[in-house]
Amino acid sequence: MKGVLLFGHGSRDPAWRQPIEAVAARIAARPGAPVVRCAYLELCEPDFDSACAELVGLGVTELRVLPMFLGMGRHAREDLPALVHALQERCPQLSIAVLPPVGEHPSALDLFADIAAL
Amino acid sequence: MKGVLLFGHGSRDPAWRQPIEAVAARIAARPGAPVVRCAYLELCEPDFDSACAELVGLGVTELRVLPMFLGMGRHAREDLPALVHALQERCPQLSIAVLPPVGEHPSALDLFADIAAL
Repeated sequence: MKGVLLFGHGSRDPAWRQPIEAVAARIAARPGAPVVRCAYLELCEPDFDSACAELVGLGVTELRVLPMFLGMGRHAREDLPALVHALQERCPQLSIAVLPPVGEHPSALDLFADIAAL
Repeated sequence: MKGVLLFGHGSRDPAWRQPIEAVAARIAARPGAPVVRCAYLELCEPDFDSACAELVGLGVTELRVLPMFLGMGRHAREDLPALVHALQERCPQLSIAVLPPVGEHPSALDLFADIAAL
C-alpha cells in the first residue's frame, strides 16, 4: 500500500498549516489516492515518527515523503534525513522515497513567477 | 515603473535562497519584466527596507510584494504588514500591493498535490 507524508516545518499558528492540510485533502480526494498524512518538525503535532507509525499501522509499505519547504535548508538537508534514517532502521521492510522540497520543483518556480506577474 | 519584491524568511544557508533567487531570475527574463529584487526577514541580506529603497531608487512607483511563504503564519500576517506600513509612511507616493503567500494559491496547492503523486 502506498502512503504519502507531507512534512513541513510547523508553526504555533494553525493558519500556517492550512495550505499543507489543503494539499493533503487534494491528494486524498483523487481516485486511487495513497494514504496521506501531514507531519511537522516542530511547534505543532503530529511529529514525523507519530505520523509514520500511523501510516505503517494502516498497512503502508511504500512511503513517499514530500518536504513542504521552499528551499533545501538545514531542516530539509539534515533534520529530515536523520528522521528518515531512524524510520528505516525501525521499519527495514518499508520502502521510503524522499522527494526534493516542493519549492525547488521547476514547475513551482515557474508558477511563483507567474503569480508575481499576475 | 513596476517593481516586484520577493520576500522570504531567510536562512543562514545560501542553498535555501536558491529557489527564491531562481524565481526572481525567471521573472527578470520575461519580456517587459518589472524590476525584481529578493529580500529576507532575518538571517540573511538584504532586508526588506534595503531592497525597497533600492527599488524606489531605481524609479519603481508600483510595488508588488510576493510573500515567499507556504502559509500565512506570524511572519506573513504580522511582520510583513508592519514593514509595509513603515515603507508606505516613508514613501507615501509609492503604490504597494501585498499578494497572498505563494503557498496559499490554489494553483500551488494543486501543483504540490501533483508533485506528491508523481
